[in-house]
Amino acid sequence: MHQLSKDGKLKNLLTIEGLKKEHIIEILDKAEGFFTPDSGEIIQTNHLQNKTVANLFFEPSTRTRSTFELAAKKLGASVLNLDISHSSTSKGESLRDTVRNLQAMQCQLFVIRHHTSGACHFIAEQIDPKVAIINAGDGCHAHPTQALLDMFTIRKHRQDFQKLSVAIVGDILHSRVARSQIHALHILRAGEIRVIGPKTLLPAQVEKLGVHVFHDLHQGLKGVDVIMMLRLQTERMQKGLLPQGNAYYRQYGLTTETLSLANPNALIIHPGPINRGVEIQSEIADSPNAVILDQVTNGIAVRMAVMSLLMNNANKGSL
Amino acid sequence: MHQLSKDGKLKNLLTIEGLKKEHIIEILDKAEGFFTPDSGEIIQTNHLQNKTVANLFFEPSTRTRSTFELAAKKLGASVLNLDISHSSTSKGESLRDTVRNLQAMQCQLFVIRHHTSGACHFIAEQIDPKVAIINAGDGCHAHPTQALLDMFTIRKHRQDFQKLSVAIVGDILHSRVARSQIHALHILRAGEIRVIGPKTLLPAQVEKLGVHVFHDLHQGLKGVDVIMMLRLQTERMQKGLLPQGNAYYRQYGLTTETLSLANPNALIIHPGPINRGVEIQSEIADSPNAVILDQVTNGIAVRMAVMSLLMNNANKGSL
Amino acid sequence: MHQLSKDGKLKNLLTIEGLKKEHIIEILDKAEGFFTPDSGEIIQTNHLQNKTVANLFFEPSTRTRSTFELAAKKLGASVLNLDISHSSTSKGESLRDTVRNLQAMQCQLFVIRHHTSGACHFIAEQIDPKVAIINAGDGCHAHPTQALLDMFTIRKHRQDFQKLSVAIVGDILHSRVARSQIHALHILRAGEIRVIGPKTLLPAQVEKLGVHVFHDLHQGLKGVDVIMMLRLQTERMQKGLLPQGNAYYRQYGLTTETLSLANPNALIIHPGPINRGVEIQSEIADSPNAVILDQVTNGIAVRMAVMSLLMNNANKGSL
Repeated sequence: MHQLSKDGKLKNLLTIEGLKKEHIIEILDKAEGFFTPDSGEIIQTNHLQNKTVANLFFEPSTRTRSTFELAAKKLGASVLNLDISHSSTSKGESLRDTVRNLQAMQCQLFVIRHHTSGACHFIAEQIDPKVAIINAGDGCHAHPTQALLDMFTIRKHRQDFQKLSVAIVGDILHSRVARSQIHALHILRAGEIRVIGPKTLLPAQVEKLGVHVFHDLHQGLKGVDVIMMLRLQTERMQKGLLPQGNAYYRQYGLTTETLSLANPNALIIHPGPINRGVEIQSEIADSPNAVILDQVTNGIAVRMAVMSLLMNNANKGSL
Repeated sequence: MHQLSKDGKLKNLLTIEGLKKEHIIEILDKAEGFFTPDSGEIIQTNHLQNKTVANLFFEPSTRTRSTFELAAKKLGASVLNLDISHSSTSKGESLRDTVRNLQAMQCQLFVIRHHTSGACHFIAEQIDPKVAIINAGDGCHAHPTQALLDMFTIRKHRQDFQKLSVAIVGDILHSRVARSQIHALHILRAGEIRVIGPKTLLPAQVEKLGVHVFHDLHQGLKGVDVIMMLRLQTERMQKGLLPQGNAYYRQYGLTTETLSLANPNALIIHPGPINRGVEIQSEIADSPNAVILDQVTNGIAVRMAVMSLLMNNANKGSL
Repeated sequence: MHQLSKDGKLKNLLTIEGLKKEHIIEILDKAEGFFTPDSGEIIQTNHLQNKTVANLFFEPSTRTRSTFELAAKKLGASVLNLDISHSSTSKGESLRDTVRNLQAMQCQLFVIRHHTSGACHFIAEQIDPKVAIINAGDGCHAHPTQALLDMFTIRKHRQDFQKLSVAIVGDILHSRVARSQIHALHILRAGEIRVIGPKTLLPAQVEKLGVHVFHDLHQGLKGVDVIMMLRLQTERMQKGLLPQGNAYYRQYGLTTETLSLANPNALIIHPGPINRGVEIQSEIADSPNAVILDQVTNGIAVRMAVMSLLMNNANKGSL
């Protein structure tokens, strides 16, 4: 494992898998401290003063890149944005050489998104112990900061995870978000975890992840306290993996009707950007129990917490 | 109107139309204060410390985006550049959702350029009163900061607007710049406003804007004190809206010969980038009465003034 | 010359040619001061506080642009990145007008990369004496900061240039790096300078540059103390200028075997990004005498030194 130091401290954030409850609680508590008590705005700090954060995106994502950029700046860091998908940076250079070069340029923290599952683990093996890596999404594997901000949001609105029945709805098979969410919910000892989706979009033997499997949305939503919608990647529809057009919405869309099966006041979560009328009814997305924009704000604070913690641990490690 | 608060303060800058003289004078005076008295350089301030300005450009424009970025940084703000035209940000997301997400990311000031006339008004309807919007050009509708920097430049060099005869030359029909200039000149009570251009490039019933219309450059320039050239968008030539090749220059180009018809020392203004030999003779663009580069510098100060004023008003509003 | 002021101070860094030994030593010494004495990390300073550095790249280069961006930020400057190759900035605007506009936007330092040899000299002729230009690579002409960081690296590891035999290996003909290196080595009075490459990739009458010419790598490397590899631009292979596929590597690749001909502990330098197995054996690139990543770090400090020196001289000049 390249995620934890010998004494169990978080060195890199590569995946939720293998973290202890204490690791997650430490991050969520730290994130809470970045809000002003009164206005709920995020404060400016100097935790990462004189540090440089490199946003290394091999897959384009303006939204996720922006949240990391804003989080880093709120910590007082310099930010270097490298949009590798558009650039000639690599010029055939290996991933390892690219990262080692940036390290030589005195970047201390790497936020990496890559289309290949496992790319961040690969880089973590290669890198100097004084620098740290955050996985901002690798292939279908993991998207740990998304799961952490989801947990932060659930804890803020619902407190005790053990009493919660949580449903994850949509394309679980291709979703790094779902995989990270399931691990996080287990670690925080959620009462029940359900996954809901068509057979073609659930991983083989998904039950082994400790979840209850539903192919029918009506059955799956019955009595749940938290609904975690996934974004439908409509390009998969074109490849025949998903029911065409309205069919998906009719079967798996969260609507006033299907929502009524869940517990009253069920919390609705979505990683964004939402597809109104594709996986979620527009009115539901704007309803008070849908905390989708709150998630975005929490995402800044949670990413600040992760960055601050990793840099803190890296500095101690190098003493 | 989403531009003024109930007590008449500027909340967003969407258009020049409907502003009072006091609003414009307040901005121009504030801009003047951002210059050092001696060297005429722009000072660094902390008016927007801990604020984040999002540059949201749905139409590419490195130049205008850069002036807003530089202005924001001179005020001590963080800047998030979002080049939506090149990115996959929206992924089919609505304009409203994009802006609400950025608001959730703790951006307080939005600088928006959009190809659709009215896009900024639409967003202003949707947005939290604690954030502010600046229209950096929407379709053929308005480009208010350009008009304000033009007014700043005219005032600096010529003082009293009531004594001035001002001519706007070129493609008035498609120009958001011209529309904003005409409104601003009226509000500042310019003595006379003329528009000069071929019939195909003047809006229907343009006289109703309170301007004198000329199709002949020689007649139109006679005795004017200020000449506001418009940039010729040469792609319109290809569509047959404009005389091909040299024909436009021969009829509407500002040259030593045509300039001689204006008042001696007539001030020459151009929003840039200039097309030398297309709408203006190269030597004229570099002559002492052409204050085109001075406009660029003034544009930074005027944008600082608008940003500072809007954030000031937003903070008061939220108390 | 637009590089030196009348009293011999560096105003712009356009090329190594024509610099005196004192100019180079001043930069290298200044760069040394930007490292912490103990950890060898680069310090944060405020030498360029309230200054704006414009990175004006007419040829895409994420890597070089990043090093200048990081160097500028380590000096406390604001950075404006303008990727002209992707943007519509110029819209047919002349290079001179683009730079004069940025100057009017209060940018004080221009880092320019351009595909045309001599572009930086051209701009330096046009520009206000209060601003400064750094050539970040123009056509096949010069890349002075690369040569300076190479000299810094050689001096750090080998001290006395007069005792050194230095070989430059590869496509000398198209290399602005090689040209700048040869000038710098002469100015610092290197004991011997050799160039090694196929006839098709050496400039006509290259001997006139005061170098010994070798077409055979084995002969050329005999007894050298420093090996400066050039990056092979593989697109030239496709145009028939270079031996196809493995042929180049077999003839001109730096391998364990060919390296054994050089002096023991010969220093290996490469401007990066390296093509493993194309111009250099992968194991050699990672060996202790290959100081390729050290060059990258030194490049930040050397660019800080050049920027700081130029701004210092510009401010004095304007008094």
